[in-house]
Amino acid sequence: MVSNRGVVYMGPRKVEVQSIDFPKLVDPRGKKCEHGVILKVVTTNICGSDQHIYRGRFAAPEGMTLGHEITGEVVEVGRDVEFIKVGDLVSVPFNVACGRCRNCKERHTDICMNTNPDFPCGAYGFNLGGWPGGQTEYHMVPYADFQLLKFPDKDQAMERIHDLTLLSDILPTGYHGCVIAGVGTGSTVYIAGAGPVGRCAAASARLLGASAIIVGDVNQTRLQLVKKSGYETVDLTQDVPLADQIESILGVREVDCGVDAVGFEAHGHGKDAAEQPEAVLNDLMSVVRFGGGMGIPGIYTSPDLGGPTDLAKQGKLILDFGKAWIKSQFAMWGQCPVMKYHRLLMQAILGGRMDYLSEVTNIEFISLDQAPEAYRTFDQGAPKKFVIDPHNSTKKAA
Amino acid sequence: MVSNRGVVYMGPRKVEVQSIDFPKLVDPRGKKCEHGVILKVVTTNICGSDQHIYRGRFAAPEGMTLGHEITGEVVEVGRDVEFIKVGDLVSVPFNVACGRCRNCKERHTDICMNTNPDFPCGAYGFNLGGWPGGQTEYHMVPYADFQLLKFPDKDQAMERIHDLTLLSDILPTGYHGCVIAGVGTGSTVYIAGAGPVGRCAAASARLLGASAIIVGDVNQTRLQLVKKSGYETVDLTQDVPLADQIESILGVREVDCGVDAVGFEAHGHGKDAAEQPEAVLNDLMSVVRFGGGMGIPGIYTSPDLGGPTDLAKQGKLILDFGKAWIKSQFAMWGQCPVMKYHRLLMQAILGGRMDYLSEVTNIEFISLDQAPEAYRTFDQGAPKKFVIDPHNSTKKAA
Amino acid sequence: MVSNRGVVYMGPRKVEVQSIDFPKLVDPRGKKCEHGVILKVVTTNICGSDQHIYRGRFAAPEGMTLGHEITGEVVEVGRDVEFIKVGDLVSVPFNVACGRCRNCKERHTDICMNTNPDFPCGAYGFNLGGWPGGQTEYHMVPYADFQLLKFPDKDQAMERIHDLTLLSDILPTGYHGCVIAGVGTGSTVYIAGAGPVGRCAAASARLLGASAIIVGDVNQTRLQLVKKSGYETVDLTQDVPLADQIESILGVREVDCGVDAVGFEAHGHGKDAAEQPEAVLNDLMSVVRFGGGMGIPGIYTSPDLGGPTDLAKQGKLILDFGKAWIKSQFAMWGQCPVMKYHRLLMQAILGGRMDYLSEVTNIEFISLDQAPEAYRTFDQGAPKKFVIDPHNSTKKAA
Amino acid sequence: MVSNRGVVYMGPRKVEVQSIDFPKLVDPRGKKCEHGVILKVVTTNICGSDQHIYRGRFAAPEGMTLGHEITGEVVEVGRDVEFIKVGDLVSVPFNVACGRCRNCKERHTDICMNTNPDFPCGAYGFNLGGWPGGQTEYHMVPYADFQLLKFPDKDQAMERIHDLTLLSDILPTGYHGCVIAGVGTGSTVYIAGAGPVGRCAAASARLLGASAIIVGDVNQTRLQLVKKSGYETVDLTQDVPLADQIESILGVREVDCGVDAVGFEAHGHGKDAAEQPEAVLNDLMSVVRFGGGMGIPGIYTSPDLGGPTDLAKQGKLILDFGKAWIKSQFAMWGQCPVMKYHRLLMQAILGGRMDYLSEVTNIEFISLDQAPEAYRTFDQGAPKKFVIDPHNSTKKAA
Repeated sequence: MVSNRGVVYMGPRKVEVQSIDFPKLVDPRGKKCEHGVILKVVTTNICGSDQHIYRGRFAAPEGMTLGHEITGEVVEVGRDVEFIKVGDLVSVPFNVACGRCRNCKERHTDICMNTNPDFPCGAYGFNLGGWPGGQTEYHMVPYADFQLLKFPDKDQAMERIHDLTLLSDILPTGYHGCVIAGVGTGSTVYIAGAGPVGRCAAASARLLGASAIIVGDVNQTRLQLVKKSGYETVDLTQDVPLADQIESILGVREVDCGVDAVGFEAHGHGKDAAEQPEAVLNDLMSVVRFGGGMGIPGIYTSPDLGGPTDLAKQGKLILDFGKAWIKSQFAMWGQCPVMKYHRLLMQAILGGRMDYLSEVTNIEFISLDQAPEAYRTFDQGAPKKFVIDPHNSTKKAA
Repeated sequence: MVSNRGVVYMGPRKVEVQSIDFPKLVDPRGKKCEHGVILKVVTTNICGSDQHIYRGRFAAPEGMTLGHEITGEVVEVGRDVEFIKVGDLVSVPFNVACGRCRNCKERHTDICMNTNPDFPCGAYGFNLGGWPGGQTEYHMVPYADFQLLKFPDKDQAMERIHDLTLLSDILPTGYHGCVIAGVGTGSTVYIAGAGPVGRCAAASARLLGASAIIVGDVNQTRLQLVKKSGYETVDLTQDVPLADQIESILGVREVDCGVDAVGFEAHGHGKDAAEQPEAVLNDLMSVVRFGGGMGIPGIYTSPDLGGPTDLAKQGKLILDFGKAWIKSQFAMWGQCPVMKYHRLLMQAILGGRMDYLSEVTNIEFISLDQAPEAYRTFDQGAPKKFVIDPHNSTKKAA
Repeated sequence: MVSNRGVVYMGPRKVEVQSIDFPKLVDPRGKKCEHGVILKVVTTNICGSDQHIYRGRFAAPEGMTLGHEITGEVVEVGRDVEFIKVGDLVSVPFNVACGRCRNCKERHTDICMNTNPDFPCGAYGFNLGGWPGGQTEYHMVPYADFQLLKFPDKDQAMERIHDLTLLSDILPTGYHGCVIAGVGTGSTVYIAGAGPVGRCAAASARLLGASAIIVGDVNQTRLQLVKKSGYETVDLTQDVPLADQIESILGVREVDCGVDAVGFEAHGHGKDAAEQPEAVLNDLMSVVRFGGGMGIPGIYTSPDLGGPTDLAKQGKLILDFGKAWIKSQFAMWGQCPVMKYHRLLMQAILGGRMDYLSEVTNIEFISLDQAPEAYRTFDQGAPKKFVIDPHNSTKKAA
Repeated sequence: MVSNRGVVYMGPRKVEVQSIDFPKLVDPRGKKCEHGVILKVVTTNICGSDQHIYRGRFAAPEGMTLGHEITGEVVEVGRDVEFIKVGDLVSVPFNVACGRCRNCKERHTDICMNTNPDFPCGAYGFNLGGWPGGQTEYHMVPYADFQLLKFPDKDQAMERIHDLTLLSDILPTGYHGCVIAGVGTGSTVYIAGAGPVGRCAAASARLLGASAIIVGDVNQTRLQLVKKSGYETVDLTQDVPLADQIESILGVREVDCGVDAVGFEAHGHGKDAAEQPEAVLNDLMSVVRFGGGMGIPGIYTSPDLGGPTDLAKQGKLILDFGKAWIKSQFAMWGQCPVMKYHRLLMQAILGGRMDYLSEVTNIEFISLDQAPEAYRTFDQGAPKKFVIDPHNSTKKAA
């Protein structure tokens, strides 16, 4: 039995690298997964949603392995795996999905009905079905034939691994936010949040042909990174209202599309604005034009025991819907169904169509042992995307 | 100059039939409308949204003529009208739309950018651009070539006038609610509200092939009408939770699609539930399944000076979005762009495809002088749709 | 080992009921199918495409078991089957599909890349991947969790079996023809062919809200059945041009949408018209309106050794595309991806939304031994749909 | 009365610059157009479809003014024009469209029902409704409020006029070809034809996020231009089959999407291939993958008196549909509805999202008097797009 190590959640703001069991082809309920494979993890990213757990805002059991953004090489396949082979280099969608339920068949792998006994939504490294996280050396993926995206050429893939590692979650998530907001040729777009998902949403909007892409945040170093990469920015710590800032960029006070890449830990506007979970949603309803759309991949939850008000603690938001209704807007929310997009985005990356992606994502490869420090730095708002490389594969490839 | 009379709003719960000016080809800002026509009104319906004005919940100037659901015969055409002719029998979309702005060109006639100087949305008989209402004997329609739906055969149309009169607003509005909620072949649908729009939504869901159509309300006579017409019902005055009532009908606790045909004057559940503007929206987020959709043609507004709480007065709703986010739902709100649907629905009616429509709408034709009494009766929840026939045309036709 | 019998193709116009092997969980290449199940066949329909084989127009090996429209009860499940259980009553999509390739994941189960080594398309009882036909007592279905549609209640399903048995192919196929032709609320539709698929297309157009549904054929008894069931008909043996016949029904010479439910064995118009493979496609391009659409589920093939001309033998059609181009039409062709529609249509049937279906399909249940005679009768144009009931299950249920 | 001059068709391969009447606000049937405007033409491009006329392959009356790709400044407005003003710089869609018929309301301005008495399709400078061409100094545009795309800032627009001049036809046409073929993020695309439309299709595919864009032609200088601009090319004069050439680029023999930017004057493959009108369509059906799509903006016509065979003269094409059917492909053909796309593409251009466009289009501005020579040069296959600047406006601006 090969050894294994992983990043383990030990309570709010405590993560440790620990020895863990080598994965088995068994699901969290103890059932054999002959449809599964074991991966040697090549890259495994730290996500903003891991930070919700890190800060104690998502209920997660102590001792849970973290991580859901996984790329790896197949080292073992179950007996019922037909098309994925040992040696394949693959991207793992963060949504655990069976490929056999109504929702999966309708391409809604974000809400698989079979991988979480509590409600239709499974994921690694969350409290969603009990699937262990993948910030590890080795990781098990069920329903491998259905789930995995195989890279066509391993050497080519390792050259682009700084972009391809994003296919497991945040690039599709940012792209999904744009797609469901209606972003297309010529659109003007406001993206709330300059974290990794917001930055991937900005690059996605560019890929989709948006004519103007504006990213808003309170974090100055992240805004600088975004601006340097060629996108417009608005600084939400300023006292200038958002619509005024948009007008000074576009000449009009509204955008075609809005993307929420922040979620429930949003803050209000202004210098020392407090946490205000409805801030982004109310912003979007306000600055998205009549007939425009909103994509809401940013996470909301209930209960939110750390919420700033009694309503917030219950996940209840005070929304300006009375003003929004006449605007004939549309909205879609929830997790990204990664499998709807990962092949397309891989093609775009491999075809050289997103060469601007890496500047704005600003990846830093780290070792597994550096992960706890990266959690801290990321929590403080570093304009980075940390990618754990547990076997030092990216340096070996380079 | 021919005389004219109309239903005039004189303050909360006061409407009167008054002599009014004969319409001219002039817009509310005094500009000549060579693109307009004058109609002799054949039928003009009382709408639930007129009731918001009637109850003083929509700001409307005293002296304003009411009405926006108009069918009529053309008696005069402007110089720039090429294709509509004197004598044509036509349905008037309630949204006043120019056909020349970006939104109209994109089929979003609900948010025309040119017919209301305040914001992109014009309508007759509201405070939306100053267009006079059409519960009158004669009425002016601008942009007639663009706006009007001509019935192909007048005699045939007068035989179906009880259904065709609904094309100006509530049938397309109910249908739109279903379409944007994703209703199609085999869908299960929950429709909040058994008023005329809810009942048209039920008939629309049937036209769209829904497998199960459930209508909820607190009004017993309306629920009885809906049940008698072949739809399922849930009684919101009961203490049984909505999901339980749905389960007792479907065997599952959720539906594919939800339609809000109530809006901001919603009430909570139970025997003597108080007004609670967010009640329907929270119901929909709760009972619409993971991946399902919501259509929200029911009106929300801000400010709502009659609202039951301080937040409600500002049009702010306390929404359970923290619970809904994980469900990957989608929603669309606002007025129906009638022109997107009225021709299709006319075809369905004339082709005999909606012969079940009239039972559930339960129209009563009345004279103009009976309109004030009908406002009162309708306000009290009559299971009717009142259609004013100011020239006694329907009886002459029959 | 239980015994098994099936309808076997023995050469043009020769089919026999023979003893055949009891199915094993093994694919045509001899590979174990732990993802498969064995069904006791409840109903298995004779299809128009079986008739192409019967008449020697499709290359098929002698000794091949026929049949691809299968409904059955699960009697054995493979190790990798998680959600389908012994005892389930299920509908089998006629396209064999893995659920693991790009096309299946994109809902294109008609062109699965893994179930036929020759090209992306697998089916039972054709020369498409070597999967044995299902006009048998027992039948093997691979990828069962992905493929099978389970009926929620067996007793309820047996009561509706005359409609549910159509879910394996022809009802979805007719519906698909309508959907890809753009049929929706209010559409006018021309359906070429009054065979079972054309008749299911007519019922589907009704379900989709079409305002006028016109079916054309040369077969008088089939046209009578269609007319009696409430649809319009045109008689292609008459010398009156198709557009004239349409005009006499609709008042206009064109329809919104056209469906080809005939395919390559089409005949020209007029009393004794010869076979002319391009006849239907040219009809559709001619009578579908500017901007309208065509669905082409009717089968075309190459080579067609029985074709009436040298070009026809090569599958080359002489199409009036020079006239069609300016009409801005659209078209889609190929097999129906049954899994895209079968659940929705099951819901519509079980919800009582298609009670008009059985009249126009005109099913006759027969025993396995009556199958050869049914092939003959069907070949002669009987206005029936023959459904083999190999275990006399439908009578036992009734 | 100001003078006017234009490019006039005087018979096959004869075009002359002649004095012509100054335009009036009158339609081709002599009816007053108060909805029209007069433009001082700023740029007016020579199109490949003008070349069909030039070569005598389209029936066109001698004495007809040519040209349909017009950008201009408004110098006179009719009385019913409300929103377009004298001085506005505007792009004219080549499809003449009323904005008042069913098709225009459904965004199908390519098949307007009111601007051509013969069939639903109007255009300038063709035999389509009698609208005079716009390769002139001054030009009349009817339905100006509906039709015209106003550039937001004249100075900014004149700086980008080399790209914006393409909005009247070929850029939207190339883009439409891609859109209807299903081009999107990650697609692989084969574009038949390296003329201006093919080159705009290539740039559009890039804008849409295609991962691989392959352009085929027999014209070497055009292929070189395309290759130099960063796209892949295949040389159809080579004896290597198309699928082999695609395989050597992509590693697979098929593409996701195909665009026909050639039309009926296509040639077969190989060194001295003869004209063969079906060559491109058969290529597309052959190299587009199972489930893929085809956009056919390339023009087909009937009769085509110059066609190489009897069938070709009747506009009848011998298509390999027997092979294509099993591939479950889709196709859409006809003129581009420019208004569906021109605003979006203008936004993309003005937002700097298509800075790669001008290299591949390779515009050359010429005077009106140089137009006859440009027709000759273009007919011989020059890798240019000729743009007539009748008032020397582009040089004045620069």
